[in-house]
Amino acid sequence: MRRLDSTSADFQSELTALLAFETSQDPQVDQRVAAILADVKTRGDAAVVEYTNKFDGTSASSMADLELTQAELKAAFERLPADQATALQAAAARVRSYHEKQKMSSWSYEDEDGTLLGQQVTALDRVGIYVPGGKAAYPSSVLMNAIPAHVAGVAEIIMVVPTPKGERNDLVLAAAYVAGVSRAFTIGGAQAVGALAYGTQTVPQVDKITGPGNAYVAAAKRAVFGVVGIDMVAGPSEILVLADGTTNPDWVAMDLFSQAEHDEIAQSILLCPDAGYVDAVYASIEKLIDTQPRKDIIAASLKNRGALIVVKDLDEACEICNYIAPEHMELSVENPEALLPKIRHAGAIFMGKFTSESLGDYCAGPNHVLPTARSARFSSPLGVYDFQKRSSLIKVSEVGAQKLGQIASVLAHGEGLTAHANAAEFRLK
Amino acid sequence: MRRLDSTSADFQSELTALLAFETSQDPQVDQRVAAILADVKTRGDAAVVEYTNKFDGTSASSMADLELTQAELKAAFERLPADQATALQAAAARVRSYHEKQKMSSWSYEDEDGTLLGQQVTALDRVGIYVPGGKAAYPSSVLMNAIPAHVAGVAEIIMVVPTPKGERNDLVLAAAYVAGVSRAFTIGGAQAVGALAYGTQTVPQVDKITGPGNAYVAAAKRAVFGVVGIDMVAGPSEILVLADGTTNPDWVAMDLFSQAEHDEIAQSILLCPDAGYVDAVYASIEKLIDTQPRKDIIAASLKNRGALIVVKDLDEACEICNYIAPEHMELSVENPEALLPKIRHAGAIFMGKFTSESLGDYCAGPNHVLPTARSARFSSPLGVYDFQKRSSLIKVSEVGAQKLGQIASVLAHGEGLTAHANAAEFRLK
Repeated sequence: MRRLDSTSADFQSELTALLAFETSQDPQVDQRVAAILADVKTRGDAAVVEYTNKFDGTSASSMADLELTQAELKAAFERLPADQATALQAAAARVRSYHEKQKMSSWSYEDEDGTLLGQQVTALDRVGIYVPGGKAAYPSSVLMNAIPAHVAGVAEIIMVVPTPKGERNDLVLAAAYVAGVSRAFTIGGAQAVGALAYGTQTVPQVDKITGPGNAYVAAAKRAVFGVVGIDMVAGPSEILVLADGTTNPDWVAMDLFSQAEHDEIAQSILLCPDAGYVDAVYASIEKLIDTQPRKDIIAASLKNRGALIVVKDLDEACEICNYIAPEHMELSVENPEALLPKIRHAGAIFMGKFTSESLGDYCAGPNHVLPTARSARFSSPLGVYDFQKRSSLIKVSEVGAQKLGQIASVLAHGEGLTAHANAAEFRLK
Repeated sequence: MRRLDSTSADFQSELTALLAFETSQDPQVDQRVAAILADVKTRGDAAVVEYTNKFDGTSASSMADLELTQAELKAAFERLPADQATALQAAAARVRSYHEKQKMSSWSYEDEDGTLLGQQVTALDRVGIYVPGGKAAYPSSVLMNAIPAHVAGVAEIIMVVPTPKGERNDLVLAAAYVAGVSRAFTIGGAQAVGALAYGTQTVPQVDKITGPGNAYVAAAKRAVFGVVGIDMVAGPSEILVLADGTTNPDWVAMDLFSQAEHDEIAQSILLCPDAGYVDAVYASIEKLIDTQPRKDIIAASLKNRGALIVVKDLDEACEICNYIAPEHMELSVENPEALLPKIRHAGAIFMGKFTSESLGDYCAGPNHVLPTARSARFSSPLGVYDFQKRSSLIKVSEVGAQKLGQIASVLAHGEGLTAHANAAEFRLK
């Protein structure tokens, strides 16, 4: 595993190389995706069924074969072992309760001339949530995408989840039931994104598509952006642990593993001013890795993209964190509140030694759909606000029209837009 | 000008045809843009200077020639006629005051176990605002992009504005001065988007790019989305006037003109249940069009994309409006408050006969950067919230770790993620 020292002359270039990840589009993927999208737009259901049979190894004869009924979702929930059913409901309740705090409301005020200004907040009508299938089928992602939409007041939540070789995941279906998904289709890839974006005979057109997926899904979402809204283009998952050396090194090692086990290209980084503690975490990694069923993935991820970084002090660690803008950030220190104001860019901040990232992933309440690949510099966790939008409200009073009309007239003439100016001038007495 | 009747059997297909606008990407534009972006990413300043000289007919020898100093911005403001200077400052003050109401704050709460949950809200560090140059140089757009960023607390606001043939627009430069732009470059097109997204030797890399532009700018923004944030992909401007027949028809005609004068592909639509009033507005259009310096553009826009639509009643008009999800929506009725709850999708709602859209464009306060092409179904006016972002906050108490750890452990094992489960289990007593 890579070990860096922030005092080394090459540190900045080493850090840049560590973070480098080709997020740009692959023209070949783009082309194939464009062809699939065009086909789905033109032929609808027939195209979706064909691509699904081809890519997912299914043998559907119509879209009806690819729709899950509410009864099927409910039955999946009822088949769950009691501990899973309880855990799923407990997680859903906590996620719901947290997200209710995010709900935006309409607002307005009147200025001194009696002109009303504000914004009306409304929910989206219908959204699509993309849930990856196959080896990375995550019921928790169903909760994290559907519950905020539900809290926002979205009337219809359409889930798509591919079922390679027809294999359904009961926990995913149960999560859809618990989260209040309206309709669910066992489709995936660019064809599912196209079906949601354009609508087909069976799949209704949505207003926004959220949820992570592979390179084809990401390319398809980028391509349909504008026709529908999208949440973000997700990259590999990342964790940055900023430690002061007071947390049990085994705990930190396991937190680094829990990111690394997602994927060979996931990234786990430790920042700590105490070189001895870094040694201890490394020893824990060596000791614990063989206990892990996914140790090959963990080892590859830590080797390819992981790093243990010795820093000068905690302030420098915060600066490095802001540069990295990690998706997940653990402030595994005695007094996280003291450092918090220095952390400007991170998707989620897990404070104190008891806050393992995995608690946040499942059930603490906040969303686990978070900005990756340095995009926490400019974007936010998925939230209720992603399923609401605002309309500006302006009601100019007769008095206000006189004052505003003068200003608008001058500026509109300055821009050479006479009709704009005249429209304002007509309202002058 | 097209005249439709909502009771006609073909109405829905006529409406769909009216709204149809090919927003999808042009592969040729995409390819040229990709080449420019790659070149700017590799060669930086040198590439930007070359493309600028080539496309804008300038003769810069280095990026230094393409940077505007603060002194130049200030001098442009000081050269303005007094009425323009006053109007610009008055508009800026109103826009600032409205946007201050949008500023989001951090929030948090503790649950019954003493676990802290919330979100920390921070400003973006540095943003780029794209201001179109040439024939559509709009100083008001400088205010509408820069002021929300400034209110959000963005430390550096970088403006790019092309100056075809070197022609600078004093009002644009003055607006940059008034709005608090940090640095300004006279560059445009895909090369300006690339410079902002990747950074060059001279142009600093930004975290987000906002502002409208032509097809090349739109394609470039779409391509760099992910590397930086973007606001939206802007389409042609639109207005929908929903009238009950009580507003002076000349006023409504001029409001339709003020959208149509932007562009031959801009769209102006009137919805009204009173056929006689629709006739009167049409008569006003015929009477007033010759008074307009931009009458050719207005006539082309109204002919190609405009429509006067007679509807059954105001409720139906609201439904049609929600389908159209217009960028600008005038509720030109006696009692706009009564209809407001029925309008779910619109970028901005201009209520009452005194509220011409042009007052909102310049100085009422709300932003004039609004979702186009039906995207008001899922997106919002540009605002302070576009220049802030959130980090989730989670600080699990020791008690909370016991309860949450059980839930997370069950769900993580259910997803086959043992390290996630172990990280939670390690925190159990």
